[in-house]
Amino acid sequence: MGMRSGCDGVVRPRSTRDDGGTGARQISTREIDTQELVRRHRPTLDRAAETIRTREHWSPYTEDTTAYGPDGAANGEAAHRRSRGGHLGLGQPGRDGVVGPSPAEGGERSPYGGELGISYDHHDPAVLLPAMRAAIPVWRDAGVETRAAVCVEILARINARSHEFAQAAMHTSGHNDVMAFHAGAVHAQDRGLEAVAYAVAEQTRLPATAVWSKPQDGAAPLTIGKTFTLRPRGISLLIGNGVFPTWSGYPGFFASLATGNAVLVKPHPRAVLPLALTVQVAREVLRGAGFDPDLVCLAPERPGEALAKTLATHPDVAIVDYTGSTPFGDWLEAHARQAQVFTGKSAVNSLLIDSTAHYRDMLANLAFSLALYSGQLCTSPQNLLIPRSGIPTDEGHKTYAQVVADLGDALGTLLADDGEAGALLGALLGPEVLARVEKAAAGALGEPAVPPRAVVHPRFPDAVIRTPAVVALDAARAEDLATLSAEWPGPVFFAVAVDSAAAGIELLARTARERGALSAGAYTTSPDVEAALVNACAEVGVMLSLNLMGRWYITQSAVYSDLHGTGMNPAANAVYCDTAFVAGRFRTVGVRRYGGAG
Amino acid sequence: MGMRSGCDGVVRPRSTRDDGGTGARQISTREIDTQELVRRHRPTLDRAAETIRTREHWSPYTEDTTAYGPDGAANGEAAHRRSRGGHLGLGQPGRDGVVGPSPAEGGERSPYGGELGISYDHHDPAVLLPAMRAAIPVWRDAGVETRAAVCVEILARINARSHEFAQAAMHTSGHNDVMAFHAGAVHAQDRGLEAVAYAVAEQTRLPATAVWSKPQDGAAPLTIGKTFTLRPRGISLLIGNGVFPTWSGYPGFFASLATGNAVLVKPHPRAVLPLALTVQVAREVLRGAGFDPDLVCLAPERPGEALAKTLATHPDVAIVDYTGSTPFGDWLEAHARQAQVFTGKSAVNSLLIDSTAHYRDMLANLAFSLALYSGQLCTSPQNLLIPRSGIPTDEGHKTYAQVVADLGDALGTLLADDGEAGALLGALLGPEVLARVEKAAAGALGEPAVPPRAVVHPRFPDAVIRTPAVVALDAARAEDLATLSAEWPGPVFFAVAVDSAAAGIELLARTARERGALSAGAYTTSPDVEAALVNACAEVGVMLSLNLMGRWYITQSAVYSDLHGTGMNPAANAVYCDTAFVAGRFRTVGVRRYGGAG
Repeated sequence: MGMRSGCDGVVRPRSTRDDGGTGARQISTREIDTQELVRRHRPTLDRAAETIRTREHWSPYTEDTTAYGPDGAANGEAAHRRSRGGHLGLGQPGRDGVVGPSPAEGGERSPYGGELGISYDHHDPAVLLPAMRAAIPVWRDAGVETRAAVCVEILARINARSHEFAQAAMHTSGHNDVMAFHAGAVHAQDRGLEAVAYAVAEQTRLPATAVWSKPQDGAAPLTIGKTFTLRPRGISLLIGNGVFPTWSGYPGFFASLATGNAVLVKPHPRAVLPLALTVQVAREVLRGAGFDPDLVCLAPERPGEALAKTLATHPDVAIVDYTGSTPFGDWLEAHARQAQVFTGKSAVNSLLIDSTAHYRDMLANLAFSLALYSGQLCTSPQNLLIPRSGIPTDEGHKTYAQVVADLGDALGTLLADDGEAGALLGALLGPEVLARVEKAAAGALGEPAVPPRAVVHPRFPDAVIRTPAVVALDAARAEDLATLSAEWPGPVFFAVAVDSAAAGIELLARTARERGALSAGAYTTSPDVEAALVNACAEVGVMLSLNLMGRWYITQSAVYSDLHGTGMNPAANAVYCDTAFVAGRFRTVGVRRYGGAG
Repeated sequence: MGMRSGCDGVVRPRSTRDDGGTGARQISTREIDTQELVRRHRPTLDRAAETIRTREHWSPYTEDTTAYGPDGAANGEAAHRRSRGGHLGLGQPGRDGVVGPSPAEGGERSPYGGELGISYDHHDPAVLLPAMRAAIPVWRDAGVETRAAVCVEILARINARSHEFAQAAMHTSGHNDVMAFHAGAVHAQDRGLEAVAYAVAEQTRLPATAVWSKPQDGAAPLTIGKTFTLRPRGISLLIGNGVFPTWSGYPGFFASLATGNAVLVKPHPRAVLPLALTVQVAREVLRGAGFDPDLVCLAPERPGEALAKTLATHPDVAIVDYTGSTPFGDWLEAHARQAQVFTGKSAVNSLLIDSTAHYRDMLANLAFSLALYSGQLCTSPQNLLIPRSGIPTDEGHKTYAQVVADLGDALGTLLADDGEAGALLGALLGPEVLARVEKAAAGALGEPAVPPRAVVHPRFPDAVIRTPAVVALDAARAEDLATLSAEWPGPVFFAVAVDSAAAGIELLARTARERGALSAGAYTTSPDVEAALVNACAEVGVMLSLNLMGRWYITQSAVYSDLHGTGMNPAANAVYCDTAFVAGRFRTVGVRRYGGAG
C-alpha cells in the first residue's frame, strides 16, 4: 500500500505556450528543484501540522522586524516607492485594458495620503478562465507534497518581502506600522501556512493505493486492487476585502491552491496592491518550479464593473472565498449556487464588564483594544456592556459613569502623544468611517462619553486619524438597542448600561445570534457569570476571551491555535481554519481492478 | 493538555419528563452503564478507524446468516410476522393521529404480496421538534466517546436483529433474501459504523484544552489557557428512500447522532418499517443509557402530506440527508437554505465492453450484475457500450450481435430456474417499474435483444418479478441517445453500439457529467483504453470497476474501503463516507482565559 505522502514530487516541465505576447518569460526548464523544495519545507509543514494539533504557540515567520536584514525596513520602503506610479504587469493572458492609475480609473489612494498611482492589467474572463483551467492538470498531477512545498515556498518569498507587504498594507488598508507588519504580513503568512497544513492532512487521509482482500469459503480470497485519486474542484475565486486582504485572503487562497485548484484573485478596488504582490510572487514560484503561472491570476476591476458578481456565478468557478459586508456575502450565498461559498461577513462584538481584581490592567488592555487600528478590525469590541449599578473592583466599587470616565482616561493616557497614537491607531478607511465618528461625537447616536480626537501622524500629516469615540447608551431604550445592534466599523464604541450581568449576557448573545459576532469578551471574577458567559457564547458560536490583560487583546487571533469564526452565527459560514474549510475543496475518485494491485 | 478522547463518559441521568401520556416508560436510573459501553465498543471503533485508513477488508457484522443463533432466521421471520397487522408505537411526544394501516391511509404494501397492515403514530412537528431540541444538551455534553459507544450499541442491537431487518427490507423494498440480509441489514450497519468512526476522528482533532504560551522579551511569557467545545448543529433530518432506506440512511443518521445532533427520520411511505425499527432500537438504547429518547424520532407522513418539504425548510432543521429522485434533491438544495443538505440523486451508469481475456467469466459476472435486485440498484450498469465492430476475446473475435446474444444466454442460464432467479432478482417496486419493462419488451425503446421473463417466486407467487430486458440501441441515433441518457430504474438495460472504445468512453463520460453516475465499469485488455477510462472517470467523478469477475460486482460498494459517490457529478453531492460528509455536522467554540490553564 503506497501512502500518498510518499509521492515522488517529480513534476513534468511546463510546456512552452504562447501567452499572447503579454511579456511573460517563456520557461522550458525548471529553475526550482521541486524535490529539494519538498525536503527543505518538510520540517516547517510537519511542525505546522503538529501545532494545529496541540494548539500551542509557534510561528516560522518572526514578528521581529529587525530579523529581515539590516536594511530590511528601508528596502521594503524603497521597493514600495518603486511600485508607486508604475505599472504592475503580471503577464497574464487575455489582457484587454488597464485599471488605474488614477482613482477614477480604479487606482488606489493611500489612507495616509496621496494616490498610489499604480496601474494593473485588466483581463477578459473569457480568455483568462480557460487558460487557468488548462493550467490545472499538471499541478493536480504533481501530488500533494509538491503542491504543499510550492505553497510554502510562495509563503517564504512573501515572508522575505514582509517589509514591502507591510508598506502595501499601510497604504491601502490604513494599518499602522506594527499592524501592517503583523496582520498585513507575518500573521497573514501564518494563516496561509495553517491552511496548507490542513490541506496536506486532509489530502493524505486515504492511501493512494490499497489491496482489498475478502476471504471466500473454500476458495482463494477475492482480491480487488484499488487506487484513490484526488481531484481539485476547478477554479477558486478569492474576493478580497479592503481591510485585511492578505490575512483574510490567504486561508482560502492557499487551501485552494494546495488542493490542486487554480486561484483567481479579485481584489478590493481599495486594496489591490497586497494581493497583486501575492499573485506576483505565486506566479514567479510556479513558473520557476515548472508549472503554468496562470494557476494564479489577478482580476482587478474597472470602476462600477461589478466583476465579483460576474466571476462568482461563472460556471467555471467552483469555489468562492469572500470576506466583506453582509449584503454581498448573502448575495453570494444565494446566487453562486454552482460553487462552494465560504464567507466572512459583518460582526457586532460585545464585551461585558462585570467585575475585576485588576481594574487598572483591565482599563489599559481595554483601551488598547479599542484604539487598535481605530476600531476597524472585525474583532473590535463595539459594545461594552456595563451593569448600571456599577462593578466591584480591587479599587472598590465603581459606578457605571466612573468606569466610562476611567476608560476615557486610559484612552487619553494611551493616546496622548500623536506619535504614539499614530503608531497604534489606523488611518480611517474612507469618508464613511469619518462620518460615523463625527456623528458619534456630535451626539447623534447618544450621549458622547469619550470624545474622539484628531491625531496628526508625524510622518503622514494628510492621514485622517481619530481616537475612539465612546457613546453612552442604555439597553433599556429601544433606540439605543437599535443603534448598538448595527455594525459601526471604525472608532465608534458604545458604553451600554445594562440591568445586570445576566442582562448583559443575554444582550451579547442576542446581537451575536441576530447580527453575527466574531469575538466576545468579559471581565469578571464571578464563577457564575463566567459559566453563564461560556454557555451563552457556546450557544451562539462566538469565541470568548476572559479577563485579558497585558499584551494580549480580544481583537487578536493566534494562528495555529485560535479558530477565527465558528460558522454558527451570521458573521461567517467559514472558519480559519478547520477541516470543513478544506475538505470540500477537492474530491476523491476510486478505481477498482479485479485481482490486481492498486 | 487534556485530549478530548480522554473524556470520562459519565452522563447525567435523564430527568423525568411528562411525555404527554403517550406511554413512554419513565426512566430515572440508567439500565446501561455507559462507561462499560465505552470499554466494550472501543476495540470495534478503533478497528473501524484503522480500516478507513487502510481501506482493507473488514466488518464486525458477519454476512453468515447462520451466525445469528440456531433459530436466527426463524426468529426474524416470527418477529416480522408479529409486526404485521399491528401498531408500532414509539412513545414520541405530539402524537396527533395515525398513519396506515391501509395503503390509502399511508400503510405499506409488500412487493412480495399483501399489505403489511402496520400503523404508526403521526406527530405534530410543533410539539416534536421542540422536544427533540430539548433533548440535545445532555447528549451533547456527554462527550464524543460516550456518544460513539451509544451509537455502536444501537448498531450492535440492530445487528442482533438482522434477520428481522432483512424481513423488513424484503417486504418494503422488494429485496431478495440475500440482498435484504446484506444491504438491508449488515452492510447498512457497516455504513453506520463507518460514519461513527469518521465522526469520532473529526471530533477529536482538537484538544479539549490547551495552553498557549508566547515568549516575551525580558518578561514572563504571555500565557492563555484555551478550551475548545464541540457544538452540534441541532436537528438533523433524514429523508429516507424506498429502495435502500437503511444502507443509504445510516450514514447521515449515525454521522449526525454521533456528532451530538438529534435525528428526525421521515421515512419513504413505501418503506417505513426498516427505519421505524431503527428508531425503535435507537430510542431503547438512548433511554437505557440515561438519555432522552426523543433524540431520535420518526415522522411518518399521511398520503399527500408532503411532510418532507415542511420539515426540510423548518428553521430548527440544520442538516438534511436525502437520497432519492433528482427533482426533489434539486428542490431541497435550492430551498432548504437554512440547512446543510447532503443529497444522493439519480444515476445513469455505463459499462464499456472493449475486450477481454475471460469472455465466459465476463458474461457471467455481467449477467449477475444486471440480474441483481432486478436492476433497481443505484449502481446497476444501465448502458452497456459495445463497439459496433465487435470485440477481441479469448474465444476469438465476437461481433456486437454475438456479445449481446451471449449475454442473453448467460442471463438465461443464470435465471433459468424460478427458485434461483427469485433468490437473485428482486420484486418490482411498483407499477411504474413494470411499465418500463413492458415498454422495453414491446420494442418501444428500441429493438428488444433479450426479452424479460416473468418469474414466479416459489414462496411469494404474488410478487411481480421480471428478468432483465436488454434493448439494442445505437449511439449514432439521436432518439437512442435520448433514451439511454435517462435513468430507467428496474430491469431495463441497453446494449449500445458505439463507434469505438474511444466513442464509448466519451459517451460514458458525457452521461455521467450531464445526468450523474455512481458507477462505471469496463472490460478491457488494452492499457490505452484503461488509461483513457481512468482519466475520463476521474474527470467526471465516478468510481471505475475494471474487469470484475468471480463474486464481486460493479453494483457493490465495500464499506470502509470504497467511497460511494464523489460529489463531482449530478448523482450526489455527498460521499459515503468522507471527511466532508461529517466535518460540518458540528462546530467548535473556543474560550481563552488570560494566564490560566484551559
